[in-house]
Amino acid sequence: MSDARLARQIEFLTEADKLKTIVRRTPLADQSRLENSAEHSWHVALAAIALREYAPDVDLQRVLELVAVHDLVEIDAGDTFAYDPDGRVHMTKTDRERAAADRVFGLLPADQGARLRERWEEFEAMESAEARYANALDRLQALLQNMSAGGGSWSTYGVTRAQVLARMAPVEATLPDVWPFVLDVIDRFCAEGAIRE
Amino acid sequence: MSDARLARQIEFLTEADKLKTIVRRTPLADQSRLENSAEHSWHVALAAIALREYAPDVDLQRVLELVAVHDLVEIDAGDTFAYDPDGRVHMTKTDRERAAADRVFGLLPADQGARLRERWEEFEAMESAEARYANALDRLQALLQNMSAGGGSWSTYGVTRAQVLARMAPVEATLPDVWPFVLDVIDRFCAEGAIRE
Repeated sequence: MSDARLARQIEFLTEADKLKTIVRRTPLADQSRLENSAEHSWHVALAAIALREYAPDVDLQRVLELVAVHDLVEIDAGDTFAYDPDGRVHMTKTDRERAAADRVFGLLPADQGARLRERWEEFEAMESAEARYANALDRLQALLQNMSAGGGSWSTYGVTRAQVLARMAPVEATLPDVWPFVLDVIDRFCAEGAIRE
Repeated sequence: MSDARLARQIEFLTEADKLKTIVRRTPLADQSRLENSAEHSWHVALAAIALREYAPDVDLQRVLELVAVHDLVEIDAGDTFAYDPDGRVHMTKTDRERAAADRVFGLLPADQGARLRERWEEFEAMESAEARYANALDRLQALLQNMSAGGGSWSTYGVTRAQVLARMAPVEATLPDVWPFVLDVIDRFCAEGAIRE
């Protein structure tokens, strides 16, 4: 391996440190602070391992690779709130994230950068079984955070049942065995008023 | 799948959230705060992916599983500072971590808890190629944090070159292609006085 190749890999890894400063809307369970995207990514990876039996046919290594890189573009593009309904914001988000992917994955040696960027694109496209599982876990993890924190971003932002159901649709599609649990949580937090009817 | 089984998996995942509150001695690159063990675990996973060509024979899925669970016992046992030289502290650490593993992995269904606990034990034993690679990355990631932060825990705690070399020995053994880079960083921070000679 050349020194130049390693130097680019190290630069990528030191740049990736910034994901620890990207704050999400979901709190920690103890409500002491909001979660960041780096620790969120770890938690989704742990969920991929712990819930694997509900998606037995996925390639777990591929899933863990998708999860590790799925939020890296936020280093430049920031975290976009899941319950922002504005379509134009979404368009802007897509453009911002593409530019971020060019820069962040471009720090790596070209062959490797292209490969990891493909992983990110695979996650975003939600087409492969691995990407569908990873996306379902990404949504489920946020639900667990809000559940543990007694409402979290649902109560803070006045989110409605219809919005939560739409956001959790990938869980219904990909993890049908987990879906009754999700519905139960939604019902419970609607009853308590944390999610608006 | 039974509801009871899923309930235990969810309980494990919500308990795991506490790893985000376990603070390490290494700072973020921007020195805004100390790093926590959850985001550290994600960063080590990303390093496992980015530096894989230096350990081409490892099973990357296994590595990513080891990394995801390697610090979970800190939820109960806390983070033990890498440069604490007191052997008795180390003995206490081992006991504390075993008890923590009993409880934390014990939250899962028994078969699954045993399997994930084996992953943690494999990481700790540093015997398999996957565990050696994961441990080398765990050490290297801390070096990258201190490097990015201009000295980090090395300067804060007056760490010596001999201590850093001993701590980084798994990198020398497992990632020989990366070792010259590590030596260069150590030399540089010794010259600047952040690491004591």
